[in-house]
Amino acid sequence: MALDEFALIGRYFRTAELERAADPSAIALGIGDDAALLQLAADQQLVISTDSLLAGVHFPEQYPPAELGYRALAVAVSDLAAMAATPLAFTLALSLPKVDEPWLQAFSRGLSVAARDFAINLIGGDTTRGPLNLGVSVFGQVPRGQALRRDGARGGDLLCVGGPLGDGAAGLAVVQRRDVPAGLPLVGQDYLQQRFWRPQPQLALGQLLRGVATAGLDVSDGLLADAEHIARASGVALHIDAARLPASEALVSWPERQQLEWMLRGGDDYVLLFTLPPAAKPRIAQWCAAGHAVSVIGSVHAGDGVLLDVGKGYAPLSGERGYQHFRSSDD
Amino acid sequence: MALDEFALIGRYFRTAELERAADPSAIALGIGDDAALLQLAADQQLVISTDSLLAGVHFPEQYPPAELGYRALAVAVSDLAAMAATPLAFTLALSLPKVDEPWLQAFSRGLSVAARDFAINLIGGDTTRGPLNLGVSVFGQVPRGQALRRDGARGGDLLCVGGPLGDGAAGLAVVQRRDVPAGLPLVGQDYLQQRFWRPQPQLALGQLLRGVATAGLDVSDGLLADAEHIARASGVALHIDAARLPASEALVSWPERQQLEWMLRGGDDYVLLFTLPPAAKPRIAQWCAAGHAVSVIGSVHAGDGVLLDVGKGYAPLSGERGYQHFRSSDD
Repeated sequence: MALDEFALIGRYFRTAELERAADPSAIALGIGDDAALLQLAADQQLVISTDSLLAGVHFPEQYPPAELGYRALAVAVSDLAAMAATPLAFTLALSLPKVDEPWLQAFSRGLSVAARDFAINLIGGDTTRGPLNLGVSVFGQVPRGQALRRDGARGGDLLCVGGPLGDGAAGLAVVQRRDVPAGLPLVGQDYLQQRFWRPQPQLALGQLLRGVATAGLDVSDGLLADAEHIARASGVALHIDAARLPASEALVSWPERQQLEWMLRGGDDYVLLFTLPPAAKPRIAQWCAAGHAVSVIGSVHAGDGVLLDVGKGYAPLSGERGYQHFRSSDD
Repeated sequence: MALDEFALIGRYFRTAELERAADPSAIALGIGDDAALLQLAADQQLVISTDSLLAGVHFPEQYPPAELGYRALAVAVSDLAAMAATPLAFTLALSLPKVDEPWLQAFSRGLSVAARDFAINLIGGDTTRGPLNLGVSVFGQVPRGQALRRDGARGGDLLCVGGPLGDGAAGLAVVQRRDVPAGLPLVGQDYLQQRFWRPQPQLALGQLLRGVATAGLDVSDGLLADAEHIARASGVALHIDAARLPASEALVSWPERQQLEWMLRGGDDYVLLFTLPPAAKPRIAQWCAAGHAVSVIGSVHAGDGVLLDVGKGYAPLSGERGYQHFRSSDD
């Protein structure tokens, strides 16, 4: 299989769009040797995140390949945004059941568009025969000590979110044509589909949060589950006011109960969730003026866990908080 | 699935053996956030390599999990040796058909032993439900400009190998109890099995080659296929003298024709193949005295491709050079 692998990689992934999507000055050696070489300035730290996406678990088997290529990279890059990092490079380990040229062309095209959108270069990877599986590792840089970690939230901080919640889950419903409200205009359907197919990692906002936010991450598992990650890592309690959760115009076509469920537990929103010291509150208006839809949705307190107010006062959560990945029917 | 993933990672992979197998001074942040942070000195470059191993393609479905854990990391770390790098850290993306506790315990134990043997710390990863698949990314460092690339071989250089060839393929035959010669003593069987189960990346030799060897890689696809990688990247011809290929004592129990086939085309040896300028020849004796079994097996010339002398003069190769990965019967 080794020779097939090389042929595949050569034809579909060794393209200028993928290898030189961004300034390559940090890349001392890209694809083609035993490993790649990155060269960072001394005041920078390297940020590393690895994700794997399996057909039937993280996405449907029949997912359109161009959208899959885009989305796989976007989701991985969102972890760089969540660390306040600037993207540098990525690797791709692709397992495919067979050499399907139209599939590979479309996948590579979607991947290239994402690589350009996020200014990140492909520096290595491999391709093997097997069940459809994408392993994406992303590398970024952040000035030393300025990464946005999960463990710095303090009592008195504000809890903020960088954009509307629930669109990822609603987008999946639109894509799957599942209970789409008759009143949802086409433009809203398009918007939600794009939010699902092409998540936009909040890289610029992440970089603005350097040295300002006390903790942060990207909402991938669902607001409540991800809030709990911050609460646990920081040793604090997070209070969330359901009435303050930001919803897109498209989301409000659904029944209120469904909206709330998706905003709280739907995954795949890829907006940043972060905590701000009270002194930084004036920045929120500046960020909003610069096009970042930041909302305050709660506050940080001594204690532990996530407490939610749905109109009857703050109460601790119970039961399932998290997002269930898309699953195959036999799962 | 998200919550299951965290539980899994927490129990089997968040161990001191895996997270602190080596000096963690370069690791500013390990497992548990959106990403890990590495901090390198300014005169160092980061070396990055990603491999994925699929059940039924790269290893049998029923592979013993402790051996699989060891081998998966060893094979990945061999790419660091092949770049003359010092290991720093690795990530693991594990896909598993079900939560099988004895399997996970044994796998984690094998992985831990390898992490300690190669002085490398686990800094991240994920676990999902799906066909058995291991994605390993390894990170190392090398002084700026001293990585062992494939593209520097020049006419007049010596072609060398860092240890015996063919043991990987012979080891697989022993493991599978396939045509094992009656005359092979038990100690030889044990040796070959270990060579297959627990490859030893030539990290120390790789580091000795910094600034000395002109090109190099690790023999994973088979000598001829890997020699061709150097020939192509460097724009030279490599001459290989079959009579000079080093074989272990255990290998010589097989018929000569089988030995030669395995030395030339067997994969999974993970010894270094490298080119040396003539002035560096005296170093070979020093390296051997220090316990590195380096042999000269050929030479570098103007031209292209790999030419092999099996006793009738140098002739270009034709046909299949490479290693066929272990395949499932339906592949």
